[in-house]
Amino acid sequence: MGTEGKVIRCKAAVAWEARKTLTIEEVEVAPPKAHEVRIKIVATGVCHTDLAVLRETKDMEGSIHAFPVVLGHEGSAVVESVGPGVSKFSKGDIVIPLFAAQCGECECCLSPKTNMCKKNWTETLKGVLSDGTSRITCRGKQIYQLFALGTFSEYTVVYDVALTKIREDAPLDKVCLLGCGISTGYGAAINAAKVEPGSTCAVFGLGAVGLAAVMGCKAAGASRIFAVDVNKDKFQKAKLFGATDFVNPKDHDKPVSQVLAEMTNGGVDFALECVGNVEVMRGALDSCRTAWGTCVVLGYVQEQDMSVAPLSLLLGRTLKGTFFGGWKSVESVPRLVDDYMNKKLMVDEFVTHNLPLEKINEAFDLMTSGQSIRTVIKMAP
Amino acid sequence: MGTEGKVIRCKAAVAWEARKTLTIEEVEVAPPKAHEVRIKIVATGVCHTDLAVLRETKDMEGSIHAFPVVLGHEGSAVVESVGPGVSKFSKGDIVIPLFAAQCGECECCLSPKTNMCKKNWTETLKGVLSDGTSRITCRGKQIYQLFALGTFSEYTVVYDVALTKIREDAPLDKVCLLGCGISTGYGAAINAAKVEPGSTCAVFGLGAVGLAAVMGCKAAGASRIFAVDVNKDKFQKAKLFGATDFVNPKDHDKPVSQVLAEMTNGGVDFALECVGNVEVMRGALDSCRTAWGTCVVLGYVQEQDMSVAPLSLLLGRTLKGTFFGGWKSVESVPRLVDDYMNKKLMVDEFVTHNLPLEKINEAFDLMTSGQSIRTVIKMAP
Repeated sequence: MGTEGKVIRCKAAVAWEARKTLTIEEVEVAPPKAHEVRIKIVATGVCHTDLAVLRETKDMEGSIHAFPVVLGHEGSAVVESVGPGVSKFSKGDIVIPLFAAQCGECECCLSPKTNMCKKNWTETLKGVLSDGTSRITCRGKQIYQLFALGTFSEYTVVYDVALTKIREDAPLDKVCLLGCGISTGYGAAINAAKVEPGSTCAVFGLGAVGLAAVMGCKAAGASRIFAVDVNKDKFQKAKLFGATDFVNPKDHDKPVSQVLAEMTNGGVDFALECVGNVEVMRGALDSCRTAWGTCVVLGYVQEQDMSVAPLSLLLGRTLKGTFFGGWKSVESVPRLVDDYMNKKLMVDEFVTHNLPLEKINEAFDLMTSGQSIRTVIKMAP
Repeated sequence: MGTEGKVIRCKAAVAWEARKTLTIEEVEVAPPKAHEVRIKIVATGVCHTDLAVLRETKDMEGSIHAFPVVLGHEGSAVVESVGPGVSKFSKGDIVIPLFAAQCGECECCLSPKTNMCKKNWTETLKGVLSDGTSRITCRGKQIYQLFALGTFSEYTVVYDVALTKIREDAPLDKVCLLGCGISTGYGAAINAAKVEPGSTCAVFGLGAVGLAAVMGCKAAGASRIFAVDVNKDKFQKAKLFGATDFVNPKDHDKPVSQVLAEMTNGGVDFALECVGNVEVMRGALDSCRTAWGTCVVLGYVQEQDMSVAPLSLLLGRTLKGTFFGGWKSVESVPRLVDDYMNKKLMVDEFVTHNLPLEKINEAFDLMTSGQSIRTVIKMAP
């Protein structure tokens, strides 16, 4: 008596409107359509982006997300059933859903220079699948799925190009975090900045993404890693991930770029901005040494522009951005899971809290108050 | 009866004060001190930067250049004598003086990643040599040497790390231009942007630097090169250097980035800004395609900042700058001369006018009115 082909009734945390707490509802999850996969969520992280959407931050196209919506985009899951045309997945597969697709066929997927699959964003940002509708409803109303995922539901339906199979022995309440924050920060250091052995690095902002960036700098062989945050309570954790020096801008009466220049004889080789603040971005760029300093922007901000002195560039600095850490998602996430299982990559250390779905609003409170790095919601045993 | 060790009296064009025409004066050129070389200028180009200094544009440290000054930094010359400690040059060598030094010993010179020699700028920008004085005087007054060169004089004295020997058969009234503009634009495409075969490029601003950038894009194998200028008279010349498409922003009622996006199905792979205008820089960055578009800024502007949308970076664009086209000067300029002699590089086509030193003010007029690409002043037969 399988569930295949039938509507599944299950629990989900629904955000009925912006700036309100989520409510746990019974929702209906429709069967997958062509090239879609229905998955049972095992665990999901709660990311700042979930909070940002709830607070009506504008998305990459300048829109505010539609409500009601099931948030959540950092999950681990088991395949429940597959729609027509799905060849790469079958029932029981252990998977991680991906907000960054990898279709494997578009000009971007075929290029080694980018991970920006063309299948991203058009419908993804609207919270629907390719036919323009979501698969989740509640009391007769369509509920949008954040980034065409919606992992704050016991079941959801995703594109088959936005899903990857991982090894069966991975702890799903940990590796769910490889679906977003950890991969983004870690990859930014390795793939985007291309941090070099013996180099000096500065990471601005020590949330999960920033801490993962610190870990990436260390993995790449940086000799000094400056952890920069206005909250000194973050420094202990940053040290655990490999930071060697700690700078609290509040402790200085000069710009942090000048502080770093003095500590490094002219600036760092690589700077990573993990905050999403245009002033911090400017500071990160100016913290880079002339001749070859590279600044990578990870933080997202829609409303404001960053200001760049042309001279800062002419003297040899490079400014770039990255999306999901530059990883081609489908092929890379399973390897990151392997790296974690082989103890090359820390994941457990990011999990500061575990909560059941019923207490998901507490996860947002912990994040807002700066107490958590990541809270993981365990959806299923 | 040589001149070695003695003061040489000769002609020079002196800028006594800002915003005034130059006057031809008899000046005294002192013998070279340690690690300096006295050279007899054969020919010199007149570059926009000479005009900019005359107009009191601020330099890279935010200062206005000191007057009186002998301008000129794009020359070819013959070594007249060498100071103590100079081992690489001797009397009669054919040379090109360099505003960008290459000492060969500093951490930058030892790195393959940059051409920003540490010997640059500290005194260079002040118009003096390493002891803090210039070697040119006139009626008892010290005359500064632009960029520690001052090629608008029949003789001048330069650092031995800011000079390179070239083959004897090169026409000096042409290859002088490899001392600045042509190398800067050509190298920006090849070394900084690293333009790829089959790629699409856009060059903003079609002065000598921009035209050289077009030539660099073509040499690198670009399949389409968009030449962008508000002066349509430049397009014919741009075509000669390899431009395939021509865009006059005045012909369109939408931003040039949008025009280029429509012409290229999403934007160019590489954009080079050769104007020195922050609005054009923003347009150049936005003209690049997402995923891997690279914008290189060549133009210099001190007073204003460029505005960058963080999203523009997060979607995969890179923004960088370059200085002297990324060429390590001492080792690269002789190779560029070889490339010219082997017909791999156009130089003659940049020379639109020749004038004697006495008529140098006409060269500035030709430049200001947009009639010339480069005027070459022939100092000696």
